[in-house]
Parts: sequence; C-alpha cells; structure tokens
Amino acid sequence: MASVIPVSNSSMRSDRNTYVGKRFVHVKNPYLDSMDEDILYHLDLGTKTHNLPAMFGDVKFVCVGGSPNRMKAFALFMHKELGLEEAEEDIKDICAGTDRYCMYKTGPVLAISHGMGIPSISIMLHELIKLLHHARCCDVTIIRIGTSGGIGIAPGTVVITDIAVDSFFKPRFEQIILDNIVTRSTELDKELSEELFNCSKEIPNFPTLIGHTMCTYDFYEGQGRLDGALCSFSREKKLDYLKRAYKAGVRNIEMESTVFAAMCGLCGLKAKSTLIKPQTF
Amino acid sequence: MASVIPVSNSSMRSDRNTYVGKRFVHVKNPYLDSMDEDILYHLDLGTKTHNLPAMFGDVKFVCVGGSPNRMKAFALFMHKELGLEEAEEDIKDICAGTDRYCMYKTGPVLAISHGMGIPSISIMLHELIKLLHHARCCDVTIIRIGTSGGIGIAPGTVVITDIAVDSFFKPRFEQIILDNIVTRSTELDKELSEELFNCSKEIPNFPTLIGHTMCTYDFYEGQGRLDGALCSFSREKKLDYLKRAYKAGVRNIEMESTVFAAMCGLCGLKAKSTLIKPQTF
Repeated sequence: MASVIPVSNSSMRSDRNTYVGKRFVHVKNPYLDSMDEDILYHLDLGTKTHNLPAMFGDVKFVCVGGSPNRMKAFALFMHKELGLEEAEEDIKDICAGTDRYCMYKTGPVLAISHGMGIPSISIMLHELIKLLHHARCCDVTIIRIGTSGGIGIAPGTVVITDIAVDSFFKPRFEQIILDNIVTRSTELDKELSEELFNCSKEIPNFPTLIGHTMCTYDFYEGQGRLDGALCSFSREKKLDYLKRAYKAGVRNIEMESTVFAAMCGLCGLKAKSTLIKPQTF
Repeated sequence: MASVIPVSNSSMRSDRNTYVGKRFVHVKNPYLDSMDEDILYHLDLGTKTHNLPAMFGDVKFVCVGGSPNRMKAFALFMHKELGLEEAEEDIKDICAGTDRYCMYKTGPVLAISHGMGIPSISIMLHELIKLLHHARCCDVTIIRIGTSGGIGIAPGTVVITDIAVDSFFKPRFEQIILDNIVTRSTELDKELSEELFNCSKEIPNFPTLIGHTMCTYDFYEGQGRLDGALCSFSREKKLDYLKRAYKAGVRNIEMESTVFAAMCGLCGLKAKSTLIKPQTF
C-alpha cells in the first residue's frame, strides 16, 4: 500500500481548502505548510516516505477505538459488510512499523486504535488529522467506538454521545498549551447522532439512547471505583457522585471523549459522534 | 507460569504489613481485603484465577516503559545479563490475554509496558500495585525507562529524575477523585537517584545527570511542538517557555512521571526513580 513519492511533495501545498462544495479536513497550524517534510512519527508514516493522497485520499469514514485487536476485528467486519473484492489477508496493519497504534483500511473506512486516555488519543488524533489533511480527504465522518461504564441504564445499552463532559459535568475540554489553560468546546454533531439513532431502530433488540458522556483522566479514583490500589471515598460518596452525574444528563463514563470532540470539531471533522456500548457499573 | 488456586485465596488476607524489617508494597483501599476476588482486568490476571504469590512473590525490580516491544527487548536483555538458566523462548507475555499492556518476567525483574500518557500508566499502576500486594512482594524497586525530549542538554544524555513537575513547573500531581482535586507529592527516591548516577559513571561515554522531569498531558501543544495539527503559539513563545522550564530545573519532558511518582510514593514503592534518555528537542 505504501509507495515512495519520487519528486515533489504535493501534499504539503496549501491549496486544500480552496475546493468548492467539499468539506476538507484542515489543520490549524501556520507552520505546517512551510515544512519540507511531515513525519507522522507515532503512525510510522510521512509525507516524503509515503504517497498519502494515493493511500488515503478516498477515506470517508474513520472509526477509532482503544484496543488494537478490536479495531482489526472491526476492519474485517466492515470488509465483509462492504462486500469488497480485496482478499481479507490483504488488510494489514498500516502502522506495523510502530507498536504505538494499529491502523487498517478497507475501502473508504479507516480503523485506528488509540490506546487508553486523553493523552494517548490526542497524539493519534494530531497525526491522523494531519494524515487526512495531507491526503486531501473531504467530507470525513469520524466515530469513536468503545466500551464504557453506564450510569442508570441497562448493561448492553448503546449510548450515542451528544456532548462530552468532564469530571465536573461541564461541556469543556481544558487543553494546556505551554503553561496556559485553554477551554475548548466538546459538542458533537447533532445530525449524525440522530442518523445513528435512527439506524439503531432498524436493528432488533439493540437498546440505544442519546445522552451525555463523561470523560475522566482516571479509571479508578476518577470513576468512583472501589477496587483500585487507592480508594479514599465511601460507597455513599461514590453513589452520590454517580447520581449527580445522572441528574446532569450523563449516561456513561469513558476516558477519551472530551479531547476527541474538541480536536475533531476544530479541524473540520464536523460529522462526528461517539458511540459507546456501556458495560456494568 | 499461571496456576489455579485450589482452595483458599490467601493473598487476599490482611497480614501483609505485619512482617518485621521488610518493606511491603501496600494498597490504600479499605475495601480491597473484604473482596472475595480481585480481577486485575487490564492485566488479564486475578486472585482466584492465578497464584500471584507463586508467580510474582520473588519480584524485586519492576521496570516500566511505554512501548511493548521495548519492554520485551529489555526483559530479554536482563535475562542475558542475569545469566539465568531458563530458555529465552520461555519469557512469554504474561498479559497475552489482553492487548492493553505487555508483561515479561525474568528472575526477580518484571518488565511492563504502560502505553502513553498519565491515564494509561495510571490504570497499569493501580493493577500492578495490587498485584505486588497480593503476591506479598517486599523491598521492590520500580524504575520507569523511556524516551523524552531534553531541554538544554545534548541528545543522548540520560536524565535521572529527582522530582517530577507539571506543565507549570510545580512538583505536584493533581488527581481528580470523583469531582474533587487532590494534590499529591511527586518526589522520587533520592538514594536511588544517586545510586543510579554512580552506576552511570562506571560506563564509558554514558552522559548522565540528575534533574527535574516535566510531565505534560499532551505531546504537541503541551510540549511546545510546532508540527501538530493544532499550533497557536509562536516559535518565540515556545522558546521562552522552554527557557523558563530550564531555569526551573527541568531537563527533560515526558508524559507519565508525575502520576508514577505520586502513586508509587503512596504505596510503599519507595526506592524508585525514573531514568529517561532524552532525544532531540
């Protein structure tokens, strides 16, 4: 799939946003276009070593999730669903040269793993957004798929996130830039949420709802778990916190949604939403 | 290596800290000892499914790092250095049942990957500390080994962290517990730092220093990189920030040290330090 670009590095030119009627993925970095080469270090890809428009130009859907194995399984599932001619064995990890993330492509669908937590998905998103930008992708929908802890809902319910909130139930992502704190919006695309919700109705026994998703920096103390190495709160305090979260509209908890919403929103991946299947809580 | 415990789950009893003269790894969670079973979900281990004291009771050194491949390479290197009889092929990933982390054991040395960023290492540390506690390990030294960006030092220099600081150069880790922010100390063991520093003198051409390590939540905007998908600061602002960091004693930047220092310090892994080899910055 990879191929070396022989002469010019056309994907680095700044003409991407001039096309009419198409929504291009854009970066918000004035330095990027003046760079001779952009190395997507954690994806083991680059603008000089790979022909990114040829490899990824047709991407329309990006699905991301924490676990590498699950993203591979998802890509193989999509391959089957799309009925593509390419042999299943040809769907190989595009990022095999690094053990940071895994990436699979089948037709217009790109599946990538992002590890666990805000910093881990943030590195991947920086490089993914640059990849889609260099590849001149347009009208891209990105969906995060993952497990999560449900609040006040039956296990197995799928939650489609309308807005991601932080540990204080606020719809914001606090990004530290150098030593400044910048607050970013975490709203997700409403139209896509409704579209996904309508899809769910077509599948029998597929309990689905639209709600807020809370994103924490920690799996144990941050999510009220009583079985971590450290636990300084009572069962009552935990239940009180989860009840207040429910009252604020939170239906599930995970660890990546705020930065996902903030970064995709800033870079023109407007048609996006997270879709999460809660497990026990 | 794994074996099923037939009758009682003795590792769950609360008699670990009563031995004299040994420093046991301890948890700070009053709920843990009353639990019938403790499942270390992200490590694919548990107190009922595995004989943790038999598997891990002799562990004296734990080395952690971001990349799974590097931790495997490190375990194989240690195996050779220790001159152990066990065949190299027998050093298998103990966490093979999950793709979240990798774990290798050779003699008294345990090597574990932790992914990237504070939330990812935090999940691993919660479960690692519980594992060492259940296995009744004592006098354990834990060392984080990783790449990092150096500030004002030659590439290739090894930085032994004396104290981990946050993006504001403060020696603290702010842990969100439910919706409260708790500040924890990030000091690392002084004696071990000096011991490691003395070791470095015995190796020719091994430039090493003791300094502060800055831990950020983000690789691009948080560390002043000009090549992310988002960049809102000037080259001058970046340089000013890095100069201020240097003046505050920071010699390198990475993404895990504050929570590593805070959690290990709280749980009796007192003899610890991070050792980091900076790359270009």
